[in-house]
Amino acid sequence: MQFELTKEFINNLISALESEDNGYIVEAINPLHPADIAEILEIVDLPQAQYLYQLLDEELASEVLVEIEEDTREQFLESFSAEEIAESIEKMDADDATDVIQDLPEDVQEEVLEALKDEEHSSDISMLMNYDEDSAGGIMDVDFVSADWNWTVKIALQKLREQVENVDQVYTIYVVDSFNKFKGILSLKRFLYTSDETLIKDIYKKDSISVLANEDSESVALKMEKYDLVVVPVVDENNKLLGRITIDDALDVIKEEAEKDYQMASGISEKVESSDSLFVISRARLPWLLIGLIGGILGAYVIGFFEYQLKENAVMATFIPLILAMGGNVGVQSSAIIVQSLANNTLNYESIFKKLFKELLVALFNGFICASIALIFCWITRSDFYLALTIGVSLVAVFTYAGLFGTFVPLILNKYKIDPALATGPFITTTNDIIGLLIYFLIGMALYF
Amino acid sequence: MQFELTKEFINNLISALESEDNGYIVEAINPLHPADIAEILEIVDLPQAQYLYQLLDEELASEVLVEIEEDTREQFLESFSAEEIAESIEKMDADDATDVIQDLPEDVQEEVLEALKDEEHSSDISMLMNYDEDSAGGIMDVDFVSADWNWTVKIALQKLREQVENVDQVYTIYVVDSFNKFKGILSLKRFLYTSDETLIKDIYKKDSISVLANEDSESVALKMEKYDLVVVPVVDENNKLLGRITIDDALDVIKEEAEKDYQMASGISEKVESSDSLFVISRARLPWLLIGLIGGILGAYVIGFFEYQLKENAVMATFIPLILAMGGNVGVQSSAIIVQSLANNTLNYESIFKKLFKELLVALFNGFICASIALIFCWITRSDFYLALTIGVSLVAVFTYAGLFGTFVPLILNKYKIDPALATGPFITTTNDIIGLLIYFLIGMALYF
Repeated sequence: MQFELTKEFINNLISALESEDNGYIVEAINPLHPADIAEILEIVDLPQAQYLYQLLDEELASEVLVEIEEDTREQFLESFSAEEIAESIEKMDADDATDVIQDLPEDVQEEVLEALKDEEHSSDISMLMNYDEDSAGGIMDVDFVSADWNWTVKIALQKLREQVENVDQVYTIYVVDSFNKFKGILSLKRFLYTSDETLIKDIYKKDSISVLANEDSESVALKMEKYDLVVVPVVDENNKLLGRITIDDALDVIKEEAEKDYQMASGISEKVESSDSLFVISRARLPWLLIGLIGGILGAYVIGFFEYQLKENAVMATFIPLILAMGGNVGVQSSAIIVQSLANNTLNYESIFKKLFKELLVALFNGFICASIALIFCWITRSDFYLALTIGVSLVAVFTYAGLFGTFVPLILNKYKIDPALATGPFITTTNDIIGLLIYFLIGMALYF
Repeated sequence: MQFELTKEFINNLISALESEDNGYIVEAINPLHPADIAEILEIVDLPQAQYLYQLLDEELASEVLVEIEEDTREQFLESFSAEEIAESIEKMDADDATDVIQDLPEDVQEEVLEALKDEEHSSDISMLMNYDEDSAGGIMDVDFVSADWNWTVKIALQKLREQVENVDQVYTIYVVDSFNKFKGILSLKRFLYTSDETLIKDIYKKDSISVLANEDSESVALKMEKYDLVVVPVVDENNKLLGRITIDDALDVIKEEAEKDYQMASGISEKVESSDSLFVISRARLPWLLIGLIGGILGAYVIGFFEYQLKENAVMATFIPLILAMGGNVGVQSSAIIVQSLANNTLNYESIFKKLFKELLVALFNGFICASIALIFCWITRSDFYLALTIGVSLVAVFTYAGLFGTFVPLILNKYKIDPALATGPFITTTNDIIGLLIYFLIGMALYF
């Protein structure tokens, strides 16, 4: 199936929604993958999406609901009663159900949980809701296939046939002892090609990787990526097997983290751009703009101190953009490198001082090249050696400061468990603007004015 | 197994490497996961890494080689002969082998291919090398399990036992017709619980998702993410089954693309920071700094035109940083939004004009808020209404320009198949600096000077 969502398809569907041509809608929608239907629900207007959703049969509706993006799901569910939501949730895996419930307002959450008919399902969900959304427990699935290590292959095969009913996809068998403590894994391949009377104990693989339920989900995702794991078992502090995390959830975590870092570096605080509300979009960007505004006003103060000197030597003003641009770029480069190294866990073995020293050398090297070009240009066009010298010396100083500051700040934030990505983008450029101006004018006072 | 790479472990290992204490080294390294060994090789110095690598047994050495980061692998392999490299490659999956060979200099590539003893392996690799590295064919694996749809379950079981030997992990069975054309998939679960005489034809799942070998690997990865696929079959234009892509490869693609966008936005052109060479690190950053330098010099020209007016009204110079900061931030925000929407494929159904109009409204709204604050501040502190008006009007104009330009440029680049991320970071801020200064001083001429 190679379904392409075309503009034509969408337009026909919207016409059908407008004329409430239910026959056409159902026929067009039913063969699609739930992920495609979810995408369609995000494209059409909210009331149309809600109308369309109610035409889906229960099974499909619940699959689609899982696929709708978190940001839009809350809004989407507003028009549904707790009972209607509970009906859809009844059919979901416990981990997906938990995600959906957690996006609801708190009072609705309780109503939905109470409206669930399957008590085991409801208690699974309540258990999962206790975990932090950003922990392994928060993204794990409680459906998995496990075998007692005292079973024979034959007994295991019987027992697994029962378990397998509830599990979407079996990747591997988890081996536990009689207290449900995780012992290791058994591959399906090995299991299927071993004679009936062999004990599980004798064929499973010890020393398998597992993760703790309260481990940070990003760290779990990085582990899965590093060790190429498709699925990883989750245990509690006593090594009791609780669930499993599949790589599609890990992929979501990795993607979200990368997007968050990118947004921070670009001065956007939330992922709200799918929203059509001008106010919501503006709100996500305004805080960073206000940081820039305050920076600009402080910059005006700094230059204000030298207003008298500028009257005499207005040429100094012409190089302000050069100083600011270079300081900003160097700072962003250094901080981005650190943020990315931290995200990839590749910084553990280098001390802060070694890192700072390396950045210092790079800053001096690049600074020297850029400063030389600027100095020569300035000397030739303005025939003013002291002006040229001021520009050159200032650039080297700004490079050095910006490189070190851009390296230092994210490292320090990280040390105190604050997201280092905060230090990138508008924050670093604004700070560098102010300090850069001070450096430039103070060197100007010393060498030129 | 929960191995944590500690500083202590590394230090002990480095001492052992220095004293060539092979016994200690082998004992410390052998129990580790290949990915951990690869990480260690990247931490220690190159000659030590090469020494350590030669102590590994063949099987482990080949697994480690796959895990070493691409950037360091070429350098790492320099000291090995084509025969030694071929020995490691002999044991790899064809797709991994292809990755390793493609990182080698071209003359070495041929030598290694000739040195391979297993001819089928060598021809698989040559076939894979024909595909673009960024295509589905370039990341696919040629080992998979397939069944003819005319087979019974019993026959299939026999045949699959033979195939399964070569396949690391079986996720699903691919069903083909007698011409090896892809027909659909058959889940292991279904296969194992169906009676022996049933025809594969009667139990497989039609309409399964497959991808074309020449499809862009990023688009494949996004598909796998969207449809939560752990593995996807790859076919040629005639629907002949060629291979499969597993989600760990898709994850690598998604991560690399996100990192590339982040680096572009931050003004770093390559991922070279694991390198210790000052020159290599500087080279990755210098091009973007030179863009900033040229921008700064052009900015100096622009302000130079107004030098005479600045002498009279030096206060105009004090607000240069404010104008530049705001133009830069707005431009980066707008372009980042577009780049991210394009990366996530969420822009297909909105026309360029609708998008530009939305950005225009956001720019005007945020611009009006920031301009009002700046105007009031300036009026109060400088008691100069015309100056305040100049700042306010300039800010609204700069917001509008920067928002539209930041939206427009990546959209245009994307239309002409150029990576839209090029338009972010230093490029957009530099352009906005120059235009922003022009806008500011021209409005200054009209309202103030």
